[in-house]
Amino acid sequence: MTYCLGIVTKYGLVMASDSRTNAGYDQVNTVKKMHTFVTPGERVFIILASGSLSCTQSVVTLLRRDFDKGEGLAKAATMYDAARAVGDKVRAVREVDKAALEQDDYKFNVHILLGGQIKGEPPQLFMLYPQGNPLQTSEESPYLQIGETKYGRPILDRGIRFDKTTLEEAAKYALLSMDSTMKSNVTVGPPVDLLAYPADELDVTRHRRFMPDDPDLAKIRNRWEQALRQAVARLPDLRFNNRPGVREEESIQLVDRNSAEGAPELQPQAGVRTPPQTS
Amino acid sequence: MTYCLGIVTKYGLVMASDSRTNAGYDQVNTVKKMHTFVTPGERVFIILASGSLSCTQSVVTLLRRDFDKGEGLAKAATMYDAARAVGDKVRAVREVDKAALEQDDYKFNVHILLGGQIKGEPPQLFMLYPQGNPLQTSEESPYLQIGETKYGRPILDRGIRFDKTTLEEAAKYALLSMDSTMKSNVTVGPPVDLLAYPADELDVTRHRRFMPDDPDLAKIRNRWEQALRQAVARLPDLRFNNRPGVREEESIQLVDRNSAEGAPELQPQAGVRTPPQTS
Repeated sequence: MTYCLGIVTKYGLVMASDSRTNAGYDQVNTVKKMHTFVTPGERVFIILASGSLSCTQSVVTLLRRDFDKGEGLAKAATMYDAARAVGDKVRAVREVDKAALEQDDYKFNVHILLGGQIKGEPPQLFMLYPQGNPLQTSEESPYLQIGETKYGRPILDRGIRFDKTTLEEAAKYALLSMDSTMKSNVTVGPPVDLLAYPADELDVTRHRRFMPDDPDLAKIRNRWEQALRQAVARLPDLRFNNRPGVREEESIQLVDRNSAEGAPELQPQAGVRTPPQTS
Repeated sequence: MTYCLGIVTKYGLVMASDSRTNAGYDQVNTVKKMHTFVTPGERVFIILASGSLSCTQSVVTLLRRDFDKGEGLAKAATMYDAARAVGDKVRAVREVDKAALEQDDYKFNVHILLGGQIKGEPPQLFMLYPQGNPLQTSEESPYLQIGETKYGRPILDRGIRFDKTTLEEAAKYALLSMDSTMKSNVTVGPPVDLLAYPADELDVTRHRRFMPDDPDLAKIRNRWEQALRQAVARLPDLRFNNRPGVREEESIQLVDRNSAEGAPELQPQAGVRTPPQTS
C-alpha cells in the first residue's frame, strides 16, 4: 500500500510520501515515491505516485525523458498544462499496459499527485486519476491524498486552512497525517519523504527523509500523543441522561475543570450559543 | 454506512453509534443502532450493529425474544457465553437469509459489537463477525469498531489506554472518533448514541443522544479543532535539508518556540535520545 498527500496553502506546498511497496506480504520493499523536476527560478514540480510500481515508474520515466529534452513539464505554460502533460503520460502507459494487466485481473490503478509552481502563477496542486484526467484543489479543500487515505484524513480536515495554515504548520500536519496512517496500517511505512515548498521560491530547498526509527519522528509522535491526551482531558465533560430513550434536555457541563489550573482558555466560536446549565 | 465503536478500560465501557441508514443516496433514514438488555444488579448488555438493517433487526428481535423469556442473554453464565448467544442468532439469521441475498449479489454483512458485564466478571467487549464467531478486545487493543472504521481509528490508537483512560475521557474519545468519521464521510451521521457504563454498576444510567446540529456537539468540535491547532503549533518545527537525495544528518529543531509563553512542558520519553542541534 501507499500513502501520499499534498497540501497547498497561500504560503506554499507540502508534499509527503511513504516508501513501502509490496507484492504480497513476503515481498515488501522500500521505494522512493517522490520525484522532483526543477528549473531553478522558473518552475518546480513535485510528483507523488500510488498504484502498481511498474506503471508509476513508467509514467515518471516518460516525464523525465521529456523534461530532459525541454519538453512536457519543461515547457508547460501553466500548471494546468503541466497537469495535462502528466495525464498524457498516464494515458500513454495505460494504453501500453492496461490490456495485459486486465487479462490477469489486475487493475490499472495509477494515481498521481502533482504539486508545483510555474513563474507568474501561484503554487498549485492536482491529482491525476488512472484515466489521466486532472482534479485540482480548492481553497475550501486545500489538500489531496492518494493510496490509503482514510486514517490520515481527519487531522487534515480539522486543521488545514488555505489562508491561515503556515508552511511550517502544514509540514507538521502532513507528518502527523502520515504517522497516523503508518500507526494504523502496517503496509504504509517509512522512510517518509517530506518536502516543503515556499511560494515563489522556484527551487527545491526543503526536503527531509525520515528513516525507520528516526528518533525525531518518535519524539514528534510522543509529543503529539501527549498533547492529544491533554486536549481530550481539557474538553468539557459530557453530561448523560439516565436511560436510552429518555427525552434529552441536558447539556454538556461547560465548566472546564482545568481552567483553574492555568489551561489556555479556548476562544468561544461565533454562532455557537452557550447552552444553559440545566440539571 | 454505519460507524459504531466500543471501548473497554478498567473503569468500564463506552459504546457509541451513529444513526444513518441508506438504501441508495435518495433513501437516507435515521435508525437507532444501539440496543440495551438489562437485569439491574445482575447483568448489562449493549449491542451495536452494522450491516443490512433488515438482518441486524432480525438478530436483535431474536435476542430480545429470548431475553424476555429468560433465555439467551438473560441466562448466559459469562460474557463469553453471551457473545456465543449473540453469535448463534447471527448464524440463525444468516441461515434464513443468506442464500436469498446472494441470489441478488448482496452479501450477508452483519457485524455486531457486544459490550457488557455479568456480575462477578469485569466488563468485556466482543465483536461478532458475519459468520457468528466472536472476537474479544485485549488490554493492548482495548477497543473495537464496525462499519466505516478508518477515519475514527487514529484518535483511538493515539489515546486509549486500558489502565489509564478514565470513563469520562473514553466517552470524549468515542465522541471525537465519531465526529471525525461524520466529518469525513457524509453517509455516517447523527443522531449519535453515546453510552458510558461504569464497571460494576450493573445498570444503564449514562446515555446521551446527540441530535443533528446539537450545539454541545458543535462546541466540542470547535474546542477540539482549536486544541489540535494549538497542539500542532506547539510541536517543534521540522528542519529540512537542501534537496531530496542529500544524505540527511539534520535534526528536528527541538527548541519549543512556545515554551517561553507558559506552554506546558511535555515529558521527555524514556528511550528517546535528544538529537544534537546540528546545523
